[in-house]
Amino acid sequence: MSKEITSRQQDYSQWYNDLILKGGLADYSAVRGCMVIKPYGFALWENMRDVLDKMFKDTGHVNAYFPLFVPKSLFEAEEKNAEGFAKECAIVTHYRLKADPNNKGKLMVDPEAKLEEELVVRPTSEAIIWNTYKGWIQSYRDLPILVNQWANVVRWEMRTRLFLRTAEFLWQEGHTAHSTKEEAIIETEKMLDVYADFVENWMALPVIKGIKTANERFAGAEETYCIEALMQDGKALQAGTSHFLGQNFAKAFDVKFSDKNNKLEYVWATSWGVSTRLIGGLVMAHSDDDGLILPPKIAPIQVVIVPIYKTENEKALIDEKVNTLVNQLKVNNIRVKYDDNDNARPGWKFAEYEMKGVPIRLAIGARDLANNVVEIARRDTKEKQSVSMDELNIYIQNLLATIQENMFNKAKNFRDEHITNVNTWDEFITTLDNTTGFVNAHWDGTPETEEKIKELSKATIRCIPLNNKEEAGNCILTGKPSKQRVLFARAY
Amino acid sequence: MSKEITSRQQDYSQWYNDLILKGGLADYSAVRGCMVIKPYGFALWENMRDVLDKMFKDTGHVNAYFPLFVPKSLFEAEEKNAEGFAKECAIVTHYRLKADPNNKGKLMVDPEAKLEEELVVRPTSEAIIWNTYKGWIQSYRDLPILVNQWANVVRWEMRTRLFLRTAEFLWQEGHTAHSTKEEAIIETEKMLDVYADFVENWMALPVIKGIKTANERFAGAEETYCIEALMQDGKALQAGTSHFLGQNFAKAFDVKFSDKNNKLEYVWATSWGVSTRLIGGLVMAHSDDDGLILPPKIAPIQVVIVPIYKTENEKALIDEKVNTLVNQLKVNNIRVKYDDNDNARPGWKFAEYEMKGVPIRLAIGARDLANNVVEIARRDTKEKQSVSMDELNIYIQNLLATIQENMFNKAKNFRDEHITNVNTWDEFITTLDNTTGFVNAHWDGTPETEEKIKELSKATIRCIPLNNKEEAGNCILTGKPSKQRVLFARAY
Repeated sequence: MSKEITSRQQDYSQWYNDLILKGGLADYSAVRGCMVIKPYGFALWENMRDVLDKMFKDTGHVNAYFPLFVPKSLFEAEEKNAEGFAKECAIVTHYRLKADPNNKGKLMVDPEAKLEEELVVRPTSEAIIWNTYKGWIQSYRDLPILVNQWANVVRWEMRTRLFLRTAEFLWQEGHTAHSTKEEAIIETEKMLDVYADFVENWMALPVIKGIKTANERFAGAEETYCIEALMQDGKALQAGTSHFLGQNFAKAFDVKFSDKNNKLEYVWATSWGVSTRLIGGLVMAHSDDDGLILPPKIAPIQVVIVPIYKTENEKALIDEKVNTLVNQLKVNNIRVKYDDNDNARPGWKFAEYEMKGVPIRLAIGARDLANNVVEIARRDTKEKQSVSMDELNIYIQNLLATIQENMFNKAKNFRDEHITNVNTWDEFITTLDNTTGFVNAHWDGTPETEEKIKELSKATIRCIPLNNKEEAGNCILTGKPSKQRVLFARAY
Repeated sequence: MSKEITSRQQDYSQWYNDLILKGGLADYSAVRGCMVIKPYGFALWENMRDVLDKMFKDTGHVNAYFPLFVPKSLFEAEEKNAEGFAKECAIVTHYRLKADPNNKGKLMVDPEAKLEEELVVRPTSEAIIWNTYKGWIQSYRDLPILVNQWANVVRWEMRTRLFLRTAEFLWQEGHTAHSTKEEAIIETEKMLDVYADFVENWMALPVIKGIKTANERFAGAEETYCIEALMQDGKALQAGTSHFLGQNFAKAFDVKFSDKNNKLEYVWATSWGVSTRLIGGLVMAHSDDDGLILPPKIAPIQVVIVPIYKTENEKALIDEKVNTLVNQLKVNNIRVKYDDNDNARPGWKFAEYEMKGVPIRLAIGARDLANNVVEIARRDTKEKQSVSMDELNIYIQNLLATIQENMFNKAKNFRDEHITNVNTWDEFITTLDNTTGFVNAHWDGTPETEEKIKELSKATIRCIPLNNKEEAGNCILTGKPSKQRVLFARAY
């Protein structure tokens, strides 16, 4: 093997880091908590972004771009939002460096270039955007505004992890403005559905849709909807959120519109986002001890072809056959790579593309050529099969679809096996410690109990599932009456 | 007219701002020097970005993403680069806000959350990238690295203008690493050609390719190549730059590779970029007193269709016809909008889409329907023509190509008429003041004379054109001997 990976059993956390680093997705950087997204990781993000972007546009949204910086006075306007993010903001205070007189060749912050008002590097853009919308909205005819932004944001997290929690990350944030509460709620739910569709059908990752408790709500939201996924270590990952913001930002920034009866009303808002964090979830949900396993629909390389030859003459014959095949696959929009780099041996390449999670690997040798076959290896199941060249094109298309489906089913079975109903505190703790996964339990509905459970168990309420069943029961901690079970888990 | 635009004659600068704001491309923001790119402007940028991105990928480049922040110690490592950007850097000094005890509901920078080392918000990414490349490059087998990044950057300019010069802007920055000087120079020139190809053939804007003088070179470069375009007011605009960085950054960050003979060598570098500034150039080069004129190949809307009707019955008949037409055009990948919003009258819409620079406008009324024709108006020449419905599909495709070509030719004729050879200082000044445009003149080759000319005339050397003709002459300022003319202009 070219690169050693720690096994999941040995150290799940190190296994994850190994995959990210050795799979070529990302790298640490010289900036605390910030990562470099390497070309292979970025190609994956581009594929995810392009699909999402199309989904947003198909649902009537347009892209725009708002400033990176938020003046402090705007940032603090919506108090709950400001309070929620104040502790993790990078702050620009100066606009110039100068030569350091005491340190030749070095620079220092020029004390004379202090900003009159500090600028917050956006941790999220509600404030700067609603301050802008004020100028765009006068009448109901200006509504709805359905805008999305692809951007970098900064949240100064104390404990960071590649992709899952980084000081800077890439995301999209939708910010919509509506004339009625109903329309805003419909939008919030619609975008949750878009996210669930994307994560399930493109990332092959089953999710549970639900709403957050008040404790876990986005700062400044009236209601936060979320999708929750399950990782292989039994911990949950919040994969996307969609917020109904009520009129909170409209009131903070005084954004009113005149309705059809010429009455002035505050505007209703939503915001929704997913980020490069999704890549972390993708890696943790699907991969194995040999490396990444990427879903075909978003894999940067769907098919890799490795030639096996001894002589230049053999190589030439293989090249000829492969070039035809590559062209056929490309016509069908299959992302294919022919790796005939002669600096590496086939065995090394096999391990390398397993590490990188390429869904299908083709190996072609001189004898295969003579028999008009190739050897096909699936990354997800490791199964190998000899397939006739003549049916290869269709075979590969079908296999990509099969792998996508298989990955989803495998993740769904795992997830379904890791949802446990419990009725007592002991069961709750035992399940979290042993079975792991989602634990479905009664809770008395108070923030205090939720906080206490978190303190004692390190588990949080991931969500109250949409269309949750009513069921009388007793809170696992306080024994007080409860009307429904909610979904707990330890989470990333 | 729905919106008043200042004429070019009256106030060129105000005309420009009117177009940007009223054409819906961008808006001022609450952050000094930063703008909001509105959906229509962003759709234009997306089209430009997508074409460029494909060109980069077709020439072997891949995308990646590096941190927004550059620690001061890395920033200052390449001294010339640091010196060049030190005066315009936004600096992050703190990572937390807290409640202001003297000001209820307000926040203040938490003095206890001061960073040990200040972070520079990237004005350009050579430093952070070369510090990263150090970890990626050991051997000649790791080279070349051909990476591009799409990102936001911040340069704290004192005088800003929408798109042309903003504190934050969007751009792409290519950063490549090579094993030989020759290969790096070939890359630098190749990317200049890509830029010229894009600006001429997609933005319909003729450019002159050349190299910058030492004074105008990118801070840290050995050679800066550029493309220069001409605006309608006779001022030049630098539209893109491609830098040969030599081994400067490799030396600053100690990035060496072992060559085929196992000898350690410093790596050779290039960087190249274009930004949202291009949109400013596009607007200033092509537009007229009625609004924007966008080149069809990158226009967000290529064809707008406006129905003209009195009764609902007429409207229904027009709808039916238009829906078929819209589908046909979409099949041919034409970006078409049917504006049947009944809140606005046709005349208002005509003015609005003229303002927005939509290349082709179709108007269809009940009588047109009866005659099986539509009225087609070209934005560039304002010509109108009645065209049979039956030939519309082909007609529109051809017309889009014709408009694209006509816009380029018009801009090229204007540019060519505004290149003047002069031999004396008086001619130089007279030409700059009256004819305007590029002035081709002898210069003695010294930075001092160049600086003096700039001081006296406000004109800078835009470039020494590639393949410049050798010609003996005398410097327009000092009379000293010169071997070639160089291209001067007043510039944005």
